[in-house]
Amino acid sequence: MKQETRDRLAKVSTATLCTALFKRGLRHQFIQEVRPLNPGLANMVGPAFTLRYIPAREDLNPITVFQDRGHPQRQAVERCPPGAVLVIDSRKDARAASAGSILVSRLMVRGVAGIVTDGGFRDSPEIARLAIPAYHHRPSAPTNLTLHQAVDIDVPIGCGDVAVFPGDVVVGDAEGVVVVPAHLADEIAAEATEMTAFEDFVTEEVLKGRSILGLYPPTDEQARADFASWRQARGR
Amino acid sequence: MKQETRDRLAKVSTATLCTALFKRGLRHQFIQEVRPLNPGLANMVGPAFTLRYIPAREDLNPITVFQDRGHPQRQAVERCPPGAVLVIDSRKDARAASAGSILVSRLMVRGVAGIVTDGGFRDSPEIARLAIPAYHHRPSAPTNLTLHQAVDIDVPIGCGDVAVFPGDVVVGDAEGVVVVPAHLADEIAAEATEMTAFEDFVTEEVLKGRSILGLYPPTDEQARADFASWRQARGR
Amino acid sequence: MKQETRDRLAKVSTATLCTALFKRGLRHQFIQEVRPLNPGLANMVGPAFTLRYIPAREDLNPITVFQDRGHPQRQAVERCPPGAVLVIDSRKDARAASAGSILVSRLMVRGVAGIVTDGGFRDSPEIARLAIPAYHHRPSAPTNLTLHQAVDIDVPIGCGDVAVFPGDVVVGDAEGVVVVPAHLADEIAAEATEMTAFEDFVTEEVLKGRSILGLYPPTDEQARADFASWRQARGR
Amino acid sequence: MKQETRDRLAKVSTATLCTALFKRGLRHQFIQEVRPLNPGLANMVGPAFTLRYIPAREDLNPITVFQDRGHPQRQAVERCPPGAVLVIDSRKDARAASAGSILVSRLMVRGVAGIVTDGGFRDSPEIARLAIPAYHHRPSAPTNLTLHQAVDIDVPIGCGDVAVFPGDVVVGDAEGVVVVPAHLADEIAAEATEMTAFEDFVTEEVLKGRSILGLYPPTDEQARADFASWRQARGR
Amino acid sequence: MKQETRDRLAKVSTATLCTALFKRGLRHQFIQEVRPLNPGLANMVGPAFTLRYIPAREDLNPITVFQDRGHPQRQAVERCPPGAVLVIDSRKDARAASAGSILVSRLMVRGVAGIVTDGGFRDSPEIARLAIPAYHHRPSAPTNLTLHQAVDIDVPIGCGDVAVFPGDVVVGDAEGVVVVPAHLADEIAAEATEMTAFEDFVTEEVLKGRSILGLYPPTDEQARADFASWRQARGR
Amino acid sequence: MKQETRDRLAKVSTATLCTALFKRGLRHQFIQEVRPLNPGLANMVGPAFTLRYIPAREDLNPITVFQDRGHPQRQAVERCPPGAVLVIDSRKDARAASAGSILVSRLMVRGVAGIVTDGGFRDSPEIARLAIPAYHHRPSAPTNLTLHQAVDIDVPIGCGDVAVFPGDVVVGDAEGVVVVPAHLADEIAAEATEMTAFEDFVTEEVLKGRSILGLYPPTDEQARADFASWRQARGR
Repeated sequence: MKQETRDRLAKVSTATLCTALFKRGLRHQFIQEVRPLNPGLANMVGPAFTLRYIPAREDLNPITVFQDRGHPQRQAVERCPPGAVLVIDSRKDARAASAGSILVSRLMVRGVAGIVTDGGFRDSPEIARLAIPAYHHRPSAPTNLTLHQAVDIDVPIGCGDVAVFPGDVVVGDAEGVVVVPAHLADEIAAEATEMTAFEDFVTEEVLKGRSILGLYPPTDEQARADFASWRQARGR
Repeated sequence: MKQETRDRLAKVSTATLCTALFKRGLRHQFIQEVRPLNPGLANMVGPAFTLRYIPAREDLNPITVFQDRGHPQRQAVERCPPGAVLVIDSRKDARAASAGSILVSRLMVRGVAGIVTDGGFRDSPEIARLAIPAYHHRPSAPTNLTLHQAVDIDVPIGCGDVAVFPGDVVVGDAEGVVVVPAHLADEIAAEATEMTAFEDFVTEEVLKGRSILGLYPPTDEQARADFASWRQARGR
Repeated sequence: MKQETRDRLAKVSTATLCTALFKRGLRHQFIQEVRPLNPGLANMVGPAFTLRYIPAREDLNPITVFQDRGHPQRQAVERCPPGAVLVIDSRKDARAASAGSILVSRLMVRGVAGIVTDGGFRDSPEIARLAIPAYHHRPSAPTNLTLHQAVDIDVPIGCGDVAVFPGDVVVGDAEGVVVVPAHLADEIAAEATEMTAFEDFVTEEVLKGRSILGLYPPTDEQARADFASWRQARGR
Repeated sequence: MKQETRDRLAKVSTATLCTALFKRGLRHQFIQEVRPLNPGLANMVGPAFTLRYIPAREDLNPITVFQDRGHPQRQAVERCPPGAVLVIDSRKDARAASAGSILVSRLMVRGVAGIVTDGGFRDSPEIARLAIPAYHHRPSAPTNLTLHQAVDIDVPIGCGDVAVFPGDVVVGDAEGVVVVPAHLADEIAAEATEMTAFEDFVTEEVLKGRSILGLYPPTDEQARADFASWRQARGR
Repeated sequence: MKQETRDRLAKVSTATLCTALFKRGLRHQFIQEVRPLNPGLANMVGPAFTLRYIPAREDLNPITVFQDRGHPQRQAVERCPPGAVLVIDSRKDARAASAGSILVSRLMVRGVAGIVTDGGFRDSPEIARLAIPAYHHRPSAPTNLTLHQAVDIDVPIGCGDVAVFPGDVVVGDAEGVVVVPAHLADEIAAEATEMTAFEDFVTEEVLKGRSILGLYPPTDEQARADFASWRQARGR
Repeated sequence: MKQETRDRLAKVSTATLCTALFKRGLRHQFIQEVRPLNPGLANMVGPAFTLRYIPAREDLNPITVFQDRGHPQRQAVERCPPGAVLVIDSRKDARAASAGSILVSRLMVRGVAGIVTDGGFRDSPEIARLAIPAYHHRPSAPTNLTLHQAVDIDVPIGCGDVAVFPGDVVVGDAEGVVVVPAHLADEIAAEATEMTAFEDFVTEEVLKGRSILGLYPPTDEQARADFASWRQARGR
């Protein structure tokens, strides 16, 4: 992805991005029921690299499976490109973990931009202290082998009721995670940047006591003029 | 509502209020599955002003609907009386937002006492920093038009499985939100104030090592006598 | 339980314990959907003492029932042994409280090691400030009489989809709660202590930039040798 | 509504109607999680007449409330126009009944075209034997006063996650219920009639052994020609 | 229980019983989410005999446990008294069976009046053909050892969110199952018999075209007079 | 698969198969929450051929996508081998259809052994009349494009919380569907056949009045001897 797009997406909210997507008829791009473990970090931005889990069958998932260097979960952790976001399809099942702090640490050290699962992480208190954005549904101590078996890397998946294709641009903030289709990333980033300037202007006006009617959206000519002045004054 | 009642309700807990309501046969007045975004604030207290959403039909809810100054959501934000609590029936559906930080800021500036939805707010990190109590189920970035259409203002609604009639007294603390029927507000406020004094006394005794048997409830004469002395000493 | 076992369990995570249990074919020992109210405390460790609730029938549960000193809920609070963990079967129903701050305070003063419910606590902000580990699903202000009736003390129960037998060893950390069958507690504590040393070693290596392949699990001879040196250097 | 439209809608399936609505961007018009009690009847067709329930507050809902002839539930039953469909917003809560066999019998005798709730009916075995189409989530014996309080007649509501406006055309078959916006009813009825002819043709062909590729949809010229012949032969 | 009470309860509906219980403040006596496997049978009536399951721990539940004649599940089947109803607390978890056709057949042969679980039965097609009323949530083929461990016989339990005490009178019809507290069984049976006569009268009138206003409830003098004549004519 | 195995599996129940799998440590092979549309048919037996859906993104799923002969859903219908069972991963989401009667008819004509989805079928009344076993969660009229996008054919999937690998043997009866790992199919079929003979014997004995103690399981020598005689007499 373009650096300019990455920079822009680092400064807008998932809420604003959802609205920009809504305008294009995309209503289901916000990953449902996930939250950040470390909400104080900057936005997570990067193209999606995916990992797909299916239910674990007991005979195929003894603790020894990880002795295989080719196990898809471990391969995903070593192969997810720096700057990308690892997105895991855990079938919205958080009764066992999707991954733990050691794997997330390895991703961080490798320069991966973030990790998202629609299940849960184990070692969640440790992950919450790492400097890599991580999103899940809830903490879950049981090893992933209890319920999840990794079968595919970098295929289209579902995550939290959202379609995620490899290369889609994933953005996370303190509210949650939105998936921007790859071909729209540049234009959505630009539009959301514009929208953010306007929302910042409106917020200032509202906090000064102005009514939202005519201002948000700016159906009054005065509102549009004031915004133009504000942008000029702020250099935005 | 009476100022005395408002003052009293500002100093009691939703748990105590639930017990006072339970004694009158009212078992379902605690709004289920909502939590405060800004739990450090003082109690939220005020009469309910309501907003009702139904599912959004796509053709009726393009982004342009907000250009209509008469849109019920925007009207609710401008018309909710200062001192009141805006309670939104979002059908317990948090997959899209009920409102965002700009509208909540406007409510705050207008002197509204708080806002409650059984769905979710967008811009939740910003709302968490505002000085107006706000309660929801979970953060939700998608615009409300994705799933919600505002249709009514100040009618009886359901919110989190509780019946909310306009004018009912809504109280929120760090635990959640309780709805006190309007005609009971004064007596419930008085009774809860008495109960709180007793609970404070019991807590002190328990922390000193006293058994709860005979003390809570005060079936021992000694417990009742000790409470009388405690009240006198404390001037409560 | 042995003091050595208690000490060891105080220093390992629920995630590590789940893996040790998984190796023995026990896949369902992590209590689902509970979280700590006071995650900053040290691990909760102690044998289970149980309390069983059934749905409350209205005529049997007026507010006056607590005037009976023999009420099972109150008896449980007074009889749970110091050092034990009170585990409550609330049928995963958090619509009304399992207990409140006064009872939890009494447990704390009596030296009880912690309290767990698969429902919710009332007065949760107060409980969050107590120095006794407490775990629940979510805050819930309504009195327990609304939905729960205590019927049994110290019988086998289900809690969060886990079988809990009196005397099983219950361990909680900032992630959640795991139930270790009584007869396995010593060996699991020993094994988890070993595993924790290895995980600490791996974490250090990973943060230094080492790949997880061959290291975690240590299929490379070098990894095993490095761990041996690490242990010697650390005295673990 | 036009008789021609009513006649057409009596002969098409809810599945076909959903597809016609999907083509117009309407994706959420099928009432979720309701089923017919009497699936052997002909299609239910009629404009929506609505009834809105909120949660029942105990003090407002003693058994005596029905002595009030003006009670909205009873009024709805007497005022729903012949040929219309009574649609009830029960907030997807089937733990208590939305109505029972006596009220449904009265609707039948009055010539009402059908009844739908996203809750449950009581006396469901009796209703299943009546000659009026009825749809609900599941049988539910408790009186509606237990959980539901009727507050509004003929306002926009949600039912099974669908927006229902008074006058929308409601169609039910053995599969479920779809809501057609009033302004689209005529064109959707016409289009669905055409689609049904084509689907009947395709079904015959498929049962004769023909591949769906090129036939469904008819991307092969031959498929379109065969359909034209089929229509002529059948007079459709 | 009295034979007269049993006979009366055999002829009234669970809906009518729920209303009679509602009048006494008992709102939660209908077992939620269970349905009859064999709805064509006569009413199920009998005192409750209970069986309590907790989650199965893998090491305690190999297939060999049933070699123990004292296993509580098997004991319950042999000890449930003729004329009683076996009610099983399966924690509303139907992912594994509560029992299968062989055990249900044994209960039938022993003269037990029925069986209820808030989980699921295996061999459900066979059970549906037996002449003993059986109620469950949904069919479930996995052996009960997969998820359930029987621990108690004839203790108070929860079943489908209802408190069930041994000896409570359990009544099932084609709609579902209601639990009548033991001490109320006689008076509820008598009252429900009266109510049923009135409802039968009302149904006849409604089917003849009479309005429900003034008739149901009979606030019109004429309605009460007509009912008196009807009873006399029918000998009820 | 071997014809002998297919024949044997046609005559045993999913319940018996679940028990045989349980004995081998496989506890999660019963597809949760699906039911047969046409329960009167003989057992469904065949190797799994899979189809994987992810959430539908609006811009990729207009009604025109089916004009592409290579669309994975249509390809799956034409390529699923005769004798195989088409198993669809619909992420347990029945809000839109997985397929409709035309596609299921085509599968039937092609000799496919059955179809399973953990979502829902549209045209379910028509499918219920076809002579091909079909299993789903509930009827669902909306076209699959509303929520589902087919992306993969014949890869490992999850269906109703069960891992399904291509070639696993899928068996369905009136109760539901079980997945037998391919390498175990022959031995499980043989063992289940033996178990079925014993269960038939036990059922006969129980219906004659014999106690289950000592008989089921046959811990009494007499029970084992009686079974031996029974087999000889029946030629089983």
